[in-house]
Amino acid sequence: MQLNVQDLLRSGAEITDQALERLLPSPDTLPHSIHRAMRHSTFAGGKRLRPILAMEAARMTAGTGEIPAGAADLGAAIEMLHTYSLIHDDLPALDNDDLRRGKPTCHVAFGEAIAILAGDALQTLAFQTIASLPTPPATTVAILREISLAVGTGVGPNSPLPPGMIGGQVVDIESEGKQPTAELVESIHRAKTGALITTSIVSGGLYGIASHSASENTIERLRTFGEKAGLAFQIVDDVLDMTQSSEELGKTAGKDTASVKATWPAIYGIDQSRKDAAELIADAFAALEPFGQQADALKALANYLVERKH
Amino acid sequence: MQLNVQDLLRSGAEITDQALERLLPSPDTLPHSIHRAMRHSTFAGGKRLRPILAMEAARMTAGTGEIPAGAADLGAAIEMLHTYSLIHDDLPALDNDDLRRGKPTCHVAFGEAIAILAGDALQTLAFQTIASLPTPPATTVAILREISLAVGTGVGPNSPLPPGMIGGQVVDIESEGKQPTAELVESIHRAKTGALITTSIVSGGLYGIASHSASENTIERLRTFGEKAGLAFQIVDDVLDMTQSSEELGKTAGKDTASVKATWPAIYGIDQSRKDAAELIADAFAALEPFGQQADALKALANYLVERKH
Repeated sequence: MQLNVQDLLRSGAEITDQALERLLPSPDTLPHSIHRAMRHSTFAGGKRLRPILAMEAARMTAGTGEIPAGAADLGAAIEMLHTYSLIHDDLPALDNDDLRRGKPTCHVAFGEAIAILAGDALQTLAFQTIASLPTPPATTVAILREISLAVGTGVGPNSPLPPGMIGGQVVDIESEGKQPTAELVESIHRAKTGALITTSIVSGGLYGIASHSASENTIERLRTFGEKAGLAFQIVDDVLDMTQSSEELGKTAGKDTASVKATWPAIYGIDQSRKDAAELIADAFAALEPFGQQADALKALANYLVERKH
Repeated sequence: MQLNVQDLLRSGAEITDQALERLLPSPDTLPHSIHRAMRHSTFAGGKRLRPILAMEAARMTAGTGEIPAGAADLGAAIEMLHTYSLIHDDLPALDNDDLRRGKPTCHVAFGEAIAILAGDALQTLAFQTIASLPTPPATTVAILREISLAVGTGVGPNSPLPPGMIGGQVVDIESEGKQPTAELVESIHRAKTGALITTSIVSGGLYGIASHSASENTIERLRTFGEKAGLAFQIVDDVLDMTQSSEELGKTAGKDTASVKATWPAIYGIDQSRKDAAELIADAFAALEPFGQQADALKALANYLVERKH
């Protein structure tokens, strides 16, 4: 297979969008407001990185060279969780953002009440979607456990819970204005962004091996890959936020610096941050070594994550 | 079995509280704020009606006379969903309530940002809890599907989705100040309150029959019971809101009337509303007729729901 990461991204986004189009209630379903709000934010131009990672992990563990049938629905469920978190993060009580990817955020377009409920409903729809996956029930339950923990409240090295998206968001809010430490930044990144990226890869891996015998080892290797690549992704995001203009990013650049948010370059500087990201990607690649060429797509995506310019 | 509904309620609430105490992260788990906020609202004095209905439905379909082991965790998951919906309903952008059961609401005690995220996290924790139920995986997936649809966006007789809690909440907000019609009020009640009550009974029924062979018919009878009893419950709630003082209710009485909210007595008057509730309960009882004495506990609970004074 000749790999072209742009093709992977384009076709993965297309498959994801088709699944989302089918799974989200139509804009003419009553009550209109919430279904339109859910669609407004879901179809606001996301790159579908998490679904693509899930589908490529499923392709790798399935070992057939093809994305297994129905894996796009798993990807769509993960994208719904990502979108719900963005809608709630943008609310006036949280980050108070008016623009996201150059478009009005959900509460600007539909009002705060509907934005809160649209976020709630996207979380719910993600779990409805998982309930209808064509995987064997034991695999569906394993995916449910994996994903529900990844969007939960765990944070930090001493937590009894694994890192979770909501936990990372709470710590991020509460650390604003305080002098960030290296440990804090890493905790936030691992929970707020890393957990959902990691679970995309791990749940995709579970999906792909559903009909195979697979070792625990496969999942642990995917988890390591996800954790390293996810952290690298967030470091690059922080660096881009400091070095690019708002126009290139499609959001307000430098906002993190302005409010003394906990970011990697704020601690280590931009050059060291770039080096750290490259080193994490090398570690991520090492975890996939036993998979040989089957891992090429995931590796190409990880490279893309750290080399992108916006 | 000599049935005493007060004993059922007391012991059911106790078992639920023990499960919630075990399942919710401790108040000393970092980040403290969100875990304390989740506990603040979860342990604010709810009667645990939904978990008790789930556990009694499980007892009935199990047919052993006992609540099956682990059914309290299912009940706790449902109570988490109920609590999440209350936290978000109370927010300034929605109902803007400062008090709930005589205590400060979540956003008053912890701020809006943490209240939004605590609601999100309770929804997530509910699905984490379902993922860990001891039921066979196929039953767990059936329960997941049932519950996730019940807290979704469906509403009204022509919806492609079954009635769902969020859908009811949206229609309730959007109908404020408009002259309510009978059809509208029934749609809101079936979705906003009825769906979660019905799913408590249906998912409890699924839990109890997990290790038995059960007919579709059993689940359909439980669904009918849940729909009728749930609607009766909400009608009685509306009537109490119009006839009782704030002190007796532990919340601001008459608020629904003041803002011309869609309620049953606003359409039919108080006397007819009471008659309707009694008739719905009679229909609900008829659905359970084949279960004989095994249904006594669910019937006693339904009676309690319409005869309560607060």
